[in-house]
Amino acid sequence: MKTIVQLITPIITKELRQLDDVIELERPDLEVRHSLLDAGPASIESEFDEALSLPDTIKKAIEAEKNGANAIVIDCMGDPGLDACREVVSIPVLGPCQTSMHLASSLAHSFAFVTVLERIRPLIHCLVAKYGLEKSYKSFRAVDIPVLEIHANISKLTDALEQEVIKAVQVDGAEAIIFGCTGFLGCVDALRAGLHKHGIDVPIIDPIPVTVHMADCLVKSGLCHSKLTYPTPGQKKIVGYDMPGFSI
Amino acid sequence: MKTIVQLITPIITKELRQLDDVIELERPDLEVRHSLLDAGPASIESEFDEALSLPDTIKKAIEAEKNGANAIVIDCMGDPGLDACREVVSIPVLGPCQTSMHLASSLAHSFAFVTVLERIRPLIHCLVAKYGLEKSYKSFRAVDIPVLEIHANISKLTDALEQEVIKAVQVDGAEAIIFGCTGFLGCVDALRAGLHKHGIDVPIIDPIPVTVHMADCLVKSGLCHSKLTYPTPGQKKIVGYDMPGFSI
Amino acid sequence: MKTIVQLITPIITKELRQLDDVIELERPDLEVRHSLLDAGPASIESEFDEALSLPDTIKKAIEAEKNGANAIVIDCMGDPGLDACREVVSIPVLGPCQTSMHLASSLAHSFAFVTVLERIRPLIHCLVAKYGLEKSYKSFRAVDIPVLEIHANISKLTDALEQEVIKAVQVDGAEAIIFGCTGFLGCVDALRAGLHKHGIDVPIIDPIPVTVHMADCLVKSGLCHSKLTYPTPGQKKIVGYDMPGFSI
Amino acid sequence: MKTIVQLITPIITKELRQLDDVIELERPDLEVRHSLLDAGPASIESEFDEALSLPDTIKKAIEAEKNGANAIVIDCMGDPGLDACREVVSIPVLGPCQTSMHLASSLAHSFAFVTVLERIRPLIHCLVAKYGLEKSYKSFRAVDIPVLEIHANISKLTDALEQEVIKAVQVDGAEAIIFGCTGFLGCVDALRAGLHKHGIDVPIIDPIPVTVHMADCLVKSGLCHSKLTYPTPGQKKIVGYDMPGFSI
Amino acid sequence: MKTIVQLITPIITKELRQLDDVIELERPDLEVRHSLLDAGPASIESEFDEALSLPDTIKKAIEAEKNGANAIVIDCMGDPGLDACREVVSIPVLGPCQTSMHLASSLAHSFAFVTVLERIRPLIHCLVAKYGLEKSYKSFRAVDIPVLEIHANISKLTDALEQEVIKAVQVDGAEAIIFGCTGFLGCVDALRAGLHKHGIDVPIIDPIPVTVHMADCLVKSGLCHSKLTYPTPGQKKIVGYDMPGFSI
Amino acid sequence: MKTIVQLITPIITKELRQLDDVIELERPDLEVRHSLLDAGPASIESEFDEALSLPDTIKKAIEAEKNGANAIVIDCMGDPGLDACREVVSIPVLGPCQTSMHLASSLAHSFAFVTVLERIRPLIHCLVAKYGLEKSYKSFRAVDIPVLEIHANISKLTDALEQEVIKAVQVDGAEAIIFGCTGFLGCVDALRAGLHKHGIDVPIIDPIPVTVHMADCLVKSGLCHSKLTYPTPGQKKIVGYDMPGFSI
Repeated sequence: MKTIVQLITPIITKELRQLDDVIELERPDLEVRHSLLDAGPASIESEFDEALSLPDTIKKAIEAEKNGANAIVIDCMGDPGLDACREVVSIPVLGPCQTSMHLASSLAHSFAFVTVLERIRPLIHCLVAKYGLEKSYKSFRAVDIPVLEIHANISKLTDALEQEVIKAVQVDGAEAIIFGCTGFLGCVDALRAGLHKHGIDVPIIDPIPVTVHMADCLVKSGLCHSKLTYPTPGQKKIVGYDMPGFSI
Repeated sequence: MKTIVQLITPIITKELRQLDDVIELERPDLEVRHSLLDAGPASIESEFDEALSLPDTIKKAIEAEKNGANAIVIDCMGDPGLDACREVVSIPVLGPCQTSMHLASSLAHSFAFVTVLERIRPLIHCLVAKYGLEKSYKSFRAVDIPVLEIHANISKLTDALEQEVIKAVQVDGAEAIIFGCTGFLGCVDALRAGLHKHGIDVPIIDPIPVTVHMADCLVKSGLCHSKLTYPTPGQKKIVGYDMPGFSI
Repeated sequence: MKTIVQLITPIITKELRQLDDVIELERPDLEVRHSLLDAGPASIESEFDEALSLPDTIKKAIEAEKNGANAIVIDCMGDPGLDACREVVSIPVLGPCQTSMHLASSLAHSFAFVTVLERIRPLIHCLVAKYGLEKSYKSFRAVDIPVLEIHANISKLTDALEQEVIKAVQVDGAEAIIFGCTGFLGCVDALRAGLHKHGIDVPIIDPIPVTVHMADCLVKSGLCHSKLTYPTPGQKKIVGYDMPGFSI
Repeated sequence: MKTIVQLITPIITKELRQLDDVIELERPDLEVRHSLLDAGPASIESEFDEALSLPDTIKKAIEAEKNGANAIVIDCMGDPGLDACREVVSIPVLGPCQTSMHLASSLAHSFAFVTVLERIRPLIHCLVAKYGLEKSYKSFRAVDIPVLEIHANISKLTDALEQEVIKAVQVDGAEAIIFGCTGFLGCVDALRAGLHKHGIDVPIIDPIPVTVHMADCLVKSGLCHSKLTYPTPGQKKIVGYDMPGFSI
Repeated sequence: MKTIVQLITPIITKELRQLDDVIELERPDLEVRHSLLDAGPASIESEFDEALSLPDTIKKAIEAEKNGANAIVIDCMGDPGLDACREVVSIPVLGPCQTSMHLASSLAHSFAFVTVLERIRPLIHCLVAKYGLEKSYKSFRAVDIPVLEIHANISKLTDALEQEVIKAVQVDGAEAIIFGCTGFLGCVDALRAGLHKHGIDVPIIDPIPVTVHMADCLVKSGLCHSKLTYPTPGQKKIVGYDMPGFSI
Repeated sequence: MKTIVQLITPIITKELRQLDDVIELERPDLEVRHSLLDAGPASIESEFDEALSLPDTIKKAIEAEKNGANAIVIDCMGDPGLDACREVVSIPVLGPCQTSMHLASSLAHSFAFVTVLERIRPLIHCLVAKYGLEKSYKSFRAVDIPVLEIHANISKLTDALEQEVIKAVQVDGAEAIIFGCTGFLGCVDALRAGLHKHGIDVPIIDPIPVTVHMADCLVKSGLCHSKLTYPTPGQKKIVGYDMPGFSI
């Protein structure tokens, strides 16, 4: 049976993510679908941006389940809406940040985030605490390039990533690396090659591919999140949002 | 100088909170203002409800600062929008849950939440982790009355609270109690009287009054949240929400 | 490309595990291979048993890699030899206990182990600490049936599991369940059905299937454990064990 | 109703603290009173000094309550006698270190102490552990000026504080600063001005003013420490100390 | 060379401890000396009592070193004055609570305190946090007999201890027991015998004997506490206490 | 009564440890015995090496108890086989790493390991987690000399140790030092002398002497590890190892 994984990119900017970017993750028994938001921010770089992405992300999750998806992956390292989406659907919903952190903690004793901007640090701090993985979180390093500019100059990005990974390993002592931005998709091979020239060989987690494969793993294992942790909301009056099945 | 504290109740239900409920907190040097949401849920009992309350809560916070408030208190024990509001304004923003937990940790070695519904437990779990206070969090107990029904029968509510507080103290070993719902405002005196009859004398934190006083304390001390933790967002394209000063 | 996952059962007892037990995990792009030990204990129920399983488990891992396996799964909830095997091979090695605990922590706020004997409790205690997941570990419950007897009476086992899961959820407050013995393979469907009759619906992690799928997920994502955490041993004199490539 | 806050400076040196230093904290509804010790050390810079400050601090607390104070603030960042004073009185007793740490943890994800001497580090270490706030405690920095000399050259002190705050923020990554000595009272405005010139804007907690305001906040909220955590001692034979109400 | 261990009982009550009680700990190479306080409380059952025991305990420690002791043991499970004494002397100073907790954590995965009164619980809570052993601390149980009455009826005490140890093991899951009062000295053999009749065999730590032997172990190993953690205080003006070498 | 402590060196290399190396630890009431392995690795520098040392270490422990030893010390800082040995014997078994870490945590607020090779870091990481002492573990530093070469040039070793200890104290802030290799036995006096010239005076724990004295302390106190934590294994079929009393 084919697993259908719906990738929801919780922003409105087509230029940052399209189905084509992830279509190569498809396998004979894995189909990947993609949605962008109709309402929300251009990119996510703050708690404020995340807040504005939530209502429409939730709506897209409800629709994805209705349309036959077997699992949902939220395409942002802030995992925006992960808990709320898990409450409203009955198929696995995965956040790439949660998935990557647990994976890194399994493959190494410590990990570092390498991401776009210093201002993401507090967001990661909160997620590490929420997921209970403070012990493995070694450091945070930023390349200082805003999300909307990462595609403008890929080789500059890869060079900057290389410099920060080297510092994360050699100065901070990290034993695995997590890309702190899903927009880095596609950089990992060039980065690994560059690092090998410096004699550095650590796992580098490119969050979206592994989270999509992990979603498939959950579906094939018949597992979903706990309804004791994410109980389904009852219906109530809601003004300003149309949430089929939940608003009266 | 008079401190102006704006209480933002992040729901749309007038029956649950009006300025009259909190006007007695005013003092000669403290003015209390109040807002409800125009868009959002009828009550907050899930991550889903919280998600839908965020955009308009943020907007009300931006407006409150513009209208001269010196501090903002979010009137919900989920502290919805606390981080995002701190990013967008330059006056103290307080969440009653964060304030109550730090206060309880100062007054006792451990605390319990007593609140409306069992389904709130995971939300509190996340906040305890985020605020780093796992060591003091002893237990969670619910009276099993939905938010929209707590005002229907106050004496039934007080009796139920009394039963759960007794269990929290005698069975779970909690040394302080936090009301896990801001809708319990006004119950604390009757509850304390009832508990004294059972020989139980522990601090019971009614979150809204103490958080309003605490907001005044911060203003008088010239303190605000850190802009390194809550950096101000830049302007960017936003669809579906009008956020003066932040959306292009 | 087909992923080859080698399952190494770190005991000598054919009756407890054969390839037939796990062959149904194979998919068009996944092959499962199986080894038992030549030297070691009949079953694993103590640190002593684990110690005696290590040398031959490591040898089987070295052979598996040489014979073309793409990943290795150790078939015991004590994860015996996980670290040593990761040092000597360059393909992913997974322990079902580590994998299940990280997965349970992703799907719920807390988990309980339900396993064979009370005497396993200290072994699980050590693994929880080693993997840094104390915050999610809620409780441990045992059905009091030795490993070598679990296959003798499956319906008795399933009944006992059901009773302990109910206590783990209702008394201990666990929000997900992990089978603490890989010998419970095959019980999960009957158990879920029984629990549904009691209105209990929590994720129940049957470790071997999900760990095999997870091994495939790692291979497909191009990820392996960190060589900074698990550096390859140099060659040295070894008496009593033949470890190709490592003993002089 | 006016709140009366008694500040107890747990040393014998008049030159270090007088009522005049804190009189400006008074407001129409807040009166501040002050006591120094009759027996104790000249200043507090060690566990030894603290030990010698305890008996008379406790006695002053008993007297303060008898004389009508509504709350007590201990004027030393070691919080000497906080627990013992809470046992013997029934009005809130606040330690500036506990109050400042909880406040800093509410306003930022991490804080640093900047204080007089390196030798204070172990004392702060113990308090951080006792108050359960290890997660937020980022670093400790000292200006290397003994307590008895801080008033000798205020501009030298302010310069030294500025240098250490800059390192705490830029090198250690602290997002809020706590003055680790109550003797720094009065330096905060000059320090903030100096830091702004370096583009640094973090909350700087001057412990005594905010702890006095916080004491008032507790009184106005009707809250006090838990008698389960700080039970009242019974009467017993005591030699060498006169403790009205407690010694037989 | 003979080790001289000075036991300082930080109270004024001769009836509770004399040299005769511990003289049997002497060995050919170990001499035990004993001091009581001249000023202080009759017994220690609160933070208040501890505070009043500190100055004279410190003085006795200074004298013990001057008189040739090689190590000091403070004879109270609150470890009163441990840090201050370590600052003022250059020989090992041991607290029985710290020693017992580290030992219990070495011999078992968890421990429980069984002690005199429920009101001791918060004191133990603070010490567990200070010593960083929260993970091993399982439970606290009290026999509800004040310190000054424990010698009145030894068989009643032993029975009560037996009941509480059984609950600590069977209900709370503790795997080792620490006597939470040094006044229980001499009860351990009868207690062990009683527990064996119930099939219970766990380590029971009688704090004073093991702490005295441990003091000898440190002396024989040439080890002492760190002067970076416990720096020697400088001389300063002190009123009300005569501390040779430290007061001007 | 004389205490007999059996030191088991879990390797096969006579040149690294003989009875003569530790005979000076004997006292009138303490006898030291020594065993090396017949099967196992030449030295221990990896989880792989440790795994191969376990079966024969366990066998030597069983024999030691049979031959009248009163306590066992495993002579390797990886504490290999500590848990398994505790299961199979009824006399205290001590690991120098566990003993040293608990001792260092008692004598100082933090400790650093100084040891042979960087590749030991992950092994120490796991033991710190297992023993629950993460809070005290400050740093790890290696002299970069393999175990088999440490005896070749003692003055080079001592110089290298001195350099790393200085960094551990001055850069990392460690307040006590643990030798991370039992092969450093005999270096401590020269090292202390060298450090004093730099004005550095911290406890340096040479693990074997203090662990042998500690074993004696446990025996004299009548204490042993908990059988609830380390339950005795039942008899079962074992292939490839002869374990008297445990294999059928």
